[in-house]
Amino acid sequence: MTEFQTVRGMRDFLPEQAAKKQYIEDICRKVFESYGFQPLETPAVEGFELLAKKGSGGEAIKDEIYYFKDKSDRELGLRFDLTVPTARVVATNPNFQKPFKRYQIGKVWRYDRPQAQRYREFTQADYDIFGSNGAMADFEIIAVTVDVLKKLGLKGKVVVNDRKVLEEAAEKNGVKKEQITDCFRSIDKLDKIGKDGVEKELKSKGINAIILGQLNLSLEKLEKELPSSVALQELKNVFALVKEAGIQEYVQFDLSLARGLEYYTGIVFEVKSGMGPSIGGGGRYDRLIETYGGRETPAIGSSFGIDRILDLLEKQLPAFAPAKIFLAAIGNENFSEVVKIAGKLREQGVAVEVDLMDRNPGKNTEYAYKKGIPFVVFVGEKEISAKELELKNLKTGKTVKVKFSEIGKVAELMK
Amino acid sequence: MTEFQTVRGMRDFLPEQAAKKQYIEDICRKVFESYGFQPLETPAVEGFELLAKKGSGGEAIKDEIYYFKDKSDRELGLRFDLTVPTARVVATNPNFQKPFKRYQIGKVWRYDRPQAQRYREFTQADYDIFGSNGAMADFEIIAVTVDVLKKLGLKGKVVVNDRKVLEEAAEKNGVKKEQITDCFRSIDKLDKIGKDGVEKELKSKGINAIILGQLNLSLEKLEKELPSSVALQELKNVFALVKEAGIQEYVQFDLSLARGLEYYTGIVFEVKSGMGPSIGGGGRYDRLIETYGGRETPAIGSSFGIDRILDLLEKQLPAFAPAKIFLAAIGNENFSEVVKIAGKLREQGVAVEVDLMDRNPGKNTEYAYKKGIPFVVFVGEKEISAKELELKNLKTGKTVKVKFSEIGKVAELMK
Repeated sequence: MTEFQTVRGMRDFLPEQAAKKQYIEDICRKVFESYGFQPLETPAVEGFELLAKKGSGGEAIKDEIYYFKDKSDRELGLRFDLTVPTARVVATNPNFQKPFKRYQIGKVWRYDRPQAQRYREFTQADYDIFGSNGAMADFEIIAVTVDVLKKLGLKGKVVVNDRKVLEEAAEKNGVKKEQITDCFRSIDKLDKIGKDGVEKELKSKGINAIILGQLNLSLEKLEKELPSSVALQELKNVFALVKEAGIQEYVQFDLSLARGLEYYTGIVFEVKSGMGPSIGGGGRYDRLIETYGGRETPAIGSSFGIDRILDLLEKQLPAFAPAKIFLAAIGNENFSEVVKIAGKLREQGVAVEVDLMDRNPGKNTEYAYKKGIPFVVFVGEKEISAKELELKNLKTGKTVKVKFSEIGKVAELMK
Repeated sequence: MTEFQTVRGMRDFLPEQAAKKQYIEDICRKVFESYGFQPLETPAVEGFELLAKKGSGGEAIKDEIYYFKDKSDRELGLRFDLTVPTARVVATNPNFQKPFKRYQIGKVWRYDRPQAQRYREFTQADYDIFGSNGAMADFEIIAVTVDVLKKLGLKGKVVVNDRKVLEEAAEKNGVKKEQITDCFRSIDKLDKIGKDGVEKELKSKGINAIILGQLNLSLEKLEKELPSSVALQELKNVFALVKEAGIQEYVQFDLSLARGLEYYTGIVFEVKSGMGPSIGGGGRYDRLIETYGGRETPAIGSSFGIDRILDLLEKQLPAFAPAKIFLAAIGNENFSEVVKIAGKLREQGVAVEVDLMDRNPGKNTEYAYKKGIPFVVFVGEKEISAKELELKNLKTGKTVKVKFSEIGKVAELMK
């Protein structure tokens, strides 16, 4: 008999890990919703034409995605991000009230070569604002990002730049307009090949490399270089709001941040955790909706990589127990009493697991302990005739007695 | 420019609908977790070999699923249910503590002919117990089902039968052992073709049709027919627990329920809402884990069709507003004050949307009203110098004044 496995590059999340993943997703969702973002859900499968439309995409994208045909020979593919489907929705619904603020937490698929911390199926948490083109929307996306970091207890930083500002700085330093894309592509490699490597690459492309000396300028110093830049003033407005909101320790300007995706048109940022690859990022992309046949629509958004956050937090997050109380009958015939008590506890919002294996108290205690369930209660003749339960705390060993008539107060008792 | 559309048979859930769908999924999840079920997440893509393994499946299943090959010519497919991936997980992890109680809420894909209320991508909410083979586990799955119905405010019924009991009744009425599967397949069509139709079909297959006259027997009357049936006694135990738990009005015995899937080995049930197709169902399937190369493992589970529940509830559920308070600056320069106030409100768990469009109060009020946001607050020079806000309730028109120093109490105020 063959042993069945997960498909290459994809993975199961077994309960302990799945609970942690859900905890992270719940925090994202809660923060998004606290800012008035609403959920949007799009299918996993999209038409290939749509998928091929992004960036330089085209036919070449077939190599990077799960591409297939349906029985009617229609070309399809699994979505590789959540931005493209959302662009489709926004483009085809021009009458949405603006701003249109949506979030989507969902799986995406890429046919990458599988490697450590890189999966062919992974979860993104996207949050975007359509219809607002000012510093306020830019700020809000950053504020949401920081709020998620804080709620997750992550010491991350949002590293911020602006494509237009970088462009102006490059042009001022002798990079020609038609060299900009190429120039940024090289700058994007700073982390990988270092300053010397980038310098070499720029020179080999015939691009002036003086800009490299300016990439660590502060916003203030850069202002002296670009005194009449409108984009820079906008960026300064965003940073002023960041300061007013008291989140400046989480946000940092970095002129060297280029971000590979060519569709960005303004502010760009990346979320660095201080360890490993970035855990999120985004920017302003005011042209994308037109690409998909929609009206000109300002847009800014960002995305968290849930799997990367999980990789970072998995060890430090506590295991989530499946229940607060484990309830077992002593003697099968008392199971119906257990069911009634469990019902009363659940009504109070207390998660209760009951013994379904007809095990003895010793075995049941062992099971509850292994599962991390903090309290056990046994219900036998004695308890039923005394109309009194004993809650045993498995960590402290302490017990509390509760009259049947007071079961409705157990949630309070355990706080 | 072509207008991009969703793939045939699949659909977007726009925010208002997506919020309702999420509400339903959240209720399922909360109920599952209150019984100690833990989350499990498996990939959307599985090896074709695994998918072809279920039931009569095999190569023929290719016509009913999204089947494709990856770049290395591996045969893959999108999962068509959540049971098969879970069976893979349980079979390959024999050391899981038992009972293993997991839930999974996720998308599945089938290449059905699209039709009303039938989608090629839909969401299932599964809950299963592995390792427990008694009436207690059977009862718990039914209790969870009823709990979900109650919390959703649905007047549904869980219609229950037992395959073994139906088998015994059929055999007692002259159906031969080798005719059982065929006989059940016909009985399964009762809703569609009626009693006369089924009778005709049975006769044409050479199957004794007397059983048809017994399908509406009560559990008590059936006991006289099958006085020594162990399976019937087990089923009676489940119904006794149902009664003890006080949920008998939601649960109903029906000997005519056959359920098509051949892998059921004991109790089977379907959730009927009284309108349209069933919204869920399941049963005991003690042989399935072996099929996937695992140890013999008792199993019982059920599944809700989230899309069908959404179809039922969508109109009666209220629209969920994206926020509780809409906050706007009067004058761009006061936006940072708005940000600070919004932060304090969010800390209390109040969802706040702020104006990102720099609109005037009239326009903003209109926007908030259309979005169903109950309260609006404007922050201008007057409010800032008086250090006092005015919360306006858009439904009643009433206003409440709140000092800046008391913003921390707004959540209380709005209750």
